Amino acid sequence: MLQQVQGGVCAAKGFTANGVHCGIRKNKTKRDLALVYSATPATAAAVYTQNLVKGAPLTVTKQNISDGKAQAVICNSGNANTCNANGIEIAEKMCDLLAKELGIDAKDVVVASTGVIGQPLDITPIANGIPALVEGLGAHSDYACEGIMTTDLKAKEIAFEFQVGGKTCRIGGIAKGSGMIHPNMATMLVFVTTDCAISAQMLQKALSEDVKDSFNMISVDGDTSTNDMVSVLANGQAGNAEITCEGAEFDAFCKALHAVTSDLCRKIAADGEGATKLLECKVCGAKDVLAARTVAKSVICSSLFKAAMFGADANWGRALCAIGYSGADVDVKKVGVCFRSKAGSVVVCENGAGVDFSEETAKAVLTESEIEVLITLGDGDGKATAWGCDLTYDYVKINGDYRT
Amino acid sequence: MLQQVQGGVCAAKGFTANGVHCGIRKNKTKRDLALVYSATPATAAAVYTQNLVKGAPLTVTKQNISDGKAQAVICNSGNANTCNANGIEIAEKMCDLLAKELGIDAKDVVVASTGVIGQPLDITPIANGIPALVEGLGAHSDYACEGIMTTDLKAKEIAFEFQVGGKTCRIGGIAKGSGMIHPNMATMLVFVTTDCAISAQMLQKALSEDVKDSFNMISVDGDTSTNDMVSVLANGQAGNAEITCEGAEFDAFCKALHAVTSDLCRKIAADGEGATKLLECKVCGAKDVLAARTVAKSVICSSLFKAAMFGADANWGRALCAIGYSGADVDVKKVGVCFRSKAGSVVVCENGAGVDFSEETAKAVLTESEIEVLITLGDGDGKATAWGCDLTYDYVKINGDYRT
Repeated sequence: MLQQVQGGVCAAKGFTANGVHCGIRKNKTKRDLALVYSATPATAAAVYTQNLVKGAPLTVTKQNISDGKAQAVICNSGNANTCNANGIEIAEKMCDLLAKELGIDAKDVVVASTGVIGQPLDITPIANGIPALVEGLGAHSDYACEGIMTTDLKAKEIAFEFQVGGKTCRIGGIAKGSGMIHPNMATMLVFVTTDCAISAQMLQKALSEDVKDSFNMISVDGDTSTNDMVSVLANGQAGNAEITCEGAEFDAFCKALHAVTSDLCRKIAADGEGATKLLECKVCGAKDVLAARTVAKSVICSSLFKAAMFGADANWGRALCAIGYSGADVDVKKVGVCFRSKAGSVVVCENGAGVDFSEETAKAVLTESEIEVLITLGDGDGKATAWGCDLTYDYVKINGDYRT
Repeated sequence: MLQQVQGGVCAAKGFTANGVHCGIRKNKTKRDLALVYSATPATAAAVYTQNLVKGAPLTVTKQNISDGKAQAVICNSGNANTCNANGIEIAEKMCDLLAKELGIDAKDVVVASTGVIGQPLDITPIANGIPALVEGLGAHSDYACEGIMTTDLKAKEIAFEFQVGGKTCRIGGIAKGSGMIHPNMATMLVFVTTDCAISAQMLQKALSEDVKDSFNMISVDGDTSTNDMVSVLANGQAGNAEITCEGAEFDAFCKALHAVTSDLCRKIAADGEGATKLLECKVCGAKDVLAARTVAKSVICSSLFKAAMFGADANWGRALCAIGYSGADVDVKKVGVCFRSKAGSVVVCENGAGVDFSEETAKAVLTESEIEVLITLGDGDGKATAWGCDLTYDYVKINGDYRT
């Protein structure tokens, strides 16, 4: 029993949040510093980008939550604090200043930054902004969500209620991410909170498994960010007996976690830089789940396929092409492709060859803003879903001059 | 001693070519059927796409030149003859009809097709066009070049003269390719001819080695085509003693081959769909040549980096990001980046961190139509060059509705 609720990262008991404009960005109407806080200590888990170039905040966060505990998340936008000589020092300073204001240990802070790479991050506006950030703490998931946005057009938050051991638990998350989206074992910035009691070890296990089918399955542009991070804080305020091993209660938690993460995945992909359409590629009949993931991700990563979707052009040969070069072991003679949306569905390929279809129907199906690309491989039981978006003029426009 | 000469695929002795409009394309002013012919039998070598979805012509060509011999190349544009139930039959029919008209064996024909995937290829216009195609054979490398073009804006041909064993040899090639360019062990359609005498085995060896540093190092959009092929015909009419082993003569041939292939690589990348700029990424100081290739290709494949180059934005963080996720073993603290063009050069990153530079100079350097991205890794002697192009509005436009 999973039920959607309001409140984002503040839905779970004991969590508050806030976001302020501190001055990293010139635009004064845009919040650029965010905070998520648990009134009581929480177990913590995180996954990080696999890019060799890593943002300094990731190194500091990894160190801070090595004991499986955290109590607050601070994140700025407008500057990634990456490839800077004093990056670590600045990230640690952010933790120190926040911890002092909150009266907690600096080692219990998760720190993150997002924005331009390679420009020194000035601590001054952050130091000046922290008092107001802490003072305004409340049910402000929306403010925190705005504070971490860069080229995002839409805020991305979600929360669910679920049952563990007879207790009602909640879990919610916020995310940012629009460009440089092609996570590898981690993702964009995502902060999840829950009041479910769960040990740090099981929390990490749940998260590490989950990202394989959630954030690792989205791509906007094939570029893996240097600052990707997903973190979860669980403060146990729901009062359930702490989950410390696998079983029905762990499964219930994982299901709730996946409800949050897959929702945020769809939102990130739909808000891809310049995107007009969400593409959801569902592969079934693969030899195994790895092959299914590989095929699904290859299709939603193809620039040619993405551009065809922008043009509502049912050019299924481009899906076949991407399946063929994916690296997965596929019998191309068995491949089927179907496009589906609110406007209906149209089968365009069976047994690796084209079938007659109505171009008019296909156009109608592909003109919708959410497109499902259903691929059958006829080779086994492997299934996977990947999320992406179309490639548009605006993607080029946004990225032709990102720094100014 | 390598000297550029005129004539493309007709530069070498004994080779003629032609291209006609036979009616596969509706536009009557565009040639859509091409022929390259050697008056005497030639040794032949080829490399093909590694995409699991392969065009039917590739299967037929592979079979035909399994004996290391060929005498003619036929290629149509406007239809890829891929993912069609009767594809093999049609490709074989093209060989039969051409062989009959030329009075050669159908097994000595290299056949290729390029264009839309998954639409049946009608043999009728090809059958009707072959008599005029053969009758018009002459020094028409340019006609053949046009006959294989799809979204290409510029014809791509080149030829060189070189010496082997005291004899003057020539080698020349034509290429097509503008979108779906991300070759893997092979490339777009490239046809090379030479009058140098070289055994089929050594010819294949030379070609297979060459593509690692030529066609496998270009990318327009990260999409590996289903119909990629590079083939070389060597008819021995230069009169040199046949090259049958490694040594100075084989080296001279390889050097001439690379002069042709690297020139065509630059031309393919510069004419990438929608491109306004050629990007040439030169990596040095890598642990080994494989690491250098991986890094160079990762940078020129990054959509974000490509869009920044379109906007003449010196956003070097995107190059660092692409180096970091390339998969190569790199010490990011040693990385240097410099942009260079006809307008000058500008160092933007040293030791993995930004350096002060003039935005004005950077803008001037990046506004040119040919940009060198010089990357130093400080880890060894490995060097490699990769070619790509910027990502522009026109790429999206061209691919938003390719089929109509």
